[in-house]
Amino acid sequence: MKIAIIGAACTKFGELWDKSLQDLLAESQLKALVDAKLDAKKIDAIFTGNMCSGMFSGQMHLGGMAAQILNTNCQSTTIEGACASGSLALRAGIMAIESGQAEVVMVNGVEKMTDLDSSITTTGLMGAGNHETEHFVGATFPGLNALIARIYMNQFGLTREELASVSVKNHKHGALNPNAHFQKEITIQNVINSQIIADPLTIFDCPPISDGAASLILSTEKFAQKHAFNKKTKIIYIIGSGQASDTLNLSQRESFVEFKASQLACKQALEIANIKIPDINVAEIHDGFSIMEIISLEDIGFFKKGEVGKATQNNLTTFGSKIVINPSGGLKAKGHPVGATGLSQAYEIVMQLRQECDKRQVKNANFGLTHNVGGCATTSVVHIFAKE
Amino acid sequence: MKIAIIGAACTKFGELWDKSLQDLLAESQLKALVDAKLDAKKIDAIFTGNMCSGMFSGQMHLGGMAAQILNTNCQSTTIEGACASGSLALRAGIMAIESGQAEVVMVNGVEKMTDLDSSITTTGLMGAGNHETEHFVGATFPGLNALIARIYMNQFGLTREELASVSVKNHKHGALNPNAHFQKEITIQNVINSQIIADPLTIFDCPPISDGAASLILSTEKFAQKHAFNKKTKIIYIIGSGQASDTLNLSQRESFVEFKASQLACKQALEIANIKIPDINVAEIHDGFSIMEIISLEDIGFFKKGEVGKATQNNLTTFGSKIVINPSGGLKAKGHPVGATGLSQAYEIVMQLRQECDKRQVKNANFGLTHNVGGCATTSVVHIFAKE
Repeated sequence: MKIAIIGAACTKFGELWDKSLQDLLAESQLKALVDAKLDAKKIDAIFTGNMCSGMFSGQMHLGGMAAQILNTNCQSTTIEGACASGSLALRAGIMAIESGQAEVVMVNGVEKMTDLDSSITTTGLMGAGNHETEHFVGATFPGLNALIARIYMNQFGLTREELASVSVKNHKHGALNPNAHFQKEITIQNVINSQIIADPLTIFDCPPISDGAASLILSTEKFAQKHAFNKKTKIIYIIGSGQASDTLNLSQRESFVEFKASQLACKQALEIANIKIPDINVAEIHDGFSIMEIISLEDIGFFKKGEVGKATQNNLTTFGSKIVINPSGGLKAKGHPVGATGLSQAYEIVMQLRQECDKRQVKNANFGLTHNVGGCATTSVVHIFAKE
Repeated sequence: MKIAIIGAACTKFGELWDKSLQDLLAESQLKALVDAKLDAKKIDAIFTGNMCSGMFSGQMHLGGMAAQILNTNCQSTTIEGACASGSLALRAGIMAIESGQAEVVMVNGVEKMTDLDSSITTTGLMGAGNHETEHFVGATFPGLNALIARIYMNQFGLTREELASVSVKNHKHGALNPNAHFQKEITIQNVINSQIIADPLTIFDCPPISDGAASLILSTEKFAQKHAFNKKTKIIYIIGSGQASDTLNLSQRESFVEFKASQLACKQALEIANIKIPDINVAEIHDGFSIMEIISLEDIGFFKKGEVGKATQNNLTTFGSKIVINPSGGLKAKGHPVGATGLSQAYEIVMQLRQECDKRQVKNANFGLTHNVGGCATTSVVHIFAKE
């Protein structure tokens, strides 16, 4: 697999009261075209990831909207997989190119979440679980993640401070990212002493509710090389992609302290890319809740089971270490407009490999990885990126 | 293109108060496996089309639900394009096979619409248009289709009786379909004298609000032949697929009496299939409103512009004619659970080509076509099917 990324864009993430869903999508799409120096007429297909536009804005059919924005008649489809929607749109774009249906594809992710009372948002997001058998009995995602965190803490001796250090690290990174929702450092004490959302998780263990959008322009290697030669644009490649599923209901899992879908998706992506985890220098990991970053780093294989908490507190996942996790600030500090998240992860890795990340640049970034999940990793998607 | 269909299923369509969204999806998925005589473990990927589950049932992430139902870890994604969602899931399934990612794919379409007040349903469905600039000013799909009907009637001299004859014909067909929402014949006078929804459209020009689901199992030609040999199942092939977009806003169209996206999608599908319109014996056409069947048959090229009304009244689109349109009863009588519609069309064509349609069997059905749109044909999808 060698799919070229010839353009990438991401809006500011945050509470963007002056921008509608349509505004965000248009901003991201047009910025990606500018980045690629590409005419919209070259786009053969569009895939747009989104989870909640129907529930939150009354708007479905974002495929039609994305095509209208570009003034094109090409095929345009919406893709959904809860918080993994953006990465699934990326996979659809890759499939379109690999199937021969398209030479150049635009993939978008967008979510507008802040025009509502946050109780409605939490209810809507529970649509990522089983509405009939989890939501009806009062489950929420903060609640489910709190259960997972408590089991993990008991089983592996993870301390409250170690768990908090994930959020502290991601806020430190976010402070270096001008697009991040939160650009402010926090301390372990801030995390522990902040409002409890679902014990043991406090508000600083949870991602914010954000607005935002991100887009990539993909193409065949052949098109990219010709285009880059003419327009002097930089090319980054996707060399591996994996996707797997686990039960929708958390209660039906074999284990609560590892995510099978992430393990399988990562294995697939690595096999296709033909590289190994130690080759990777920078990764964007789905830290939907602080506990998820810990479990996910073990599922992917960056650390041994039970060791991530200590590693994080010992600064082994931040700048200067062998692997830098979530240089963008992650979902925690960069923000989590759910449909946009997967593509904002890909955007970060593209910028890191293009060496365009200024204060948060990871040195010698040659291979990057993104990991994006929907629900409690019911859907898991992993992509691997390379410079050439 | 030669994608095999080795299994097909469709639930009863109607007001299914005793079945939830999950029940419908499970019924359809499991029936398709039974039809194909296939073990779920053979499925490499699942794509599920749905429009409104978030708004109507609080449930997103149907990809995760579909995988859980099959007890599989394979990739599973939700696809949306308003009322064309089912056909877009089919296109995703085709892409997965053509890209080499999958050998066997399940595609589903499902919608649960009847647990709500119908005003909420109409509001939700307007998510297929532009919420900011059409819905906010009071537009609904019956209203937009009424505008189109009025313009078409003025421009081409279509009579009220001719328009009504589309619904009469589709109800006649639906009366022969045990899965149809309405299995009752109606007269032209019934249509004209029934409740006005948006002048000139009466309730019998509009599709019902239905629950239902449909599934297909697709595979490579190679897998299908081996499987059919072992299990004595019948294979039908998809030999062409096309998809195109038009503006989300009706106001931005070049024409109100033809749908550019349908013309483009049909052209693509025919080129890939390498057949011509006169080769086709049976078609399922998106008669979301009676006027849409008329315009769509012209866009596809079954009749010349302005001639469909007369042709319908003269029985040129029913059993015994050169081309039979909507033998299932169409959206009008079979019902329109929006996410399921595209795949229920494909199901009907598969059954017609397998000669399993009993009283509504089209004689000598060798080539079939499905046409499915989202919004006012903002998204249009055409598939062409053959016996071998």
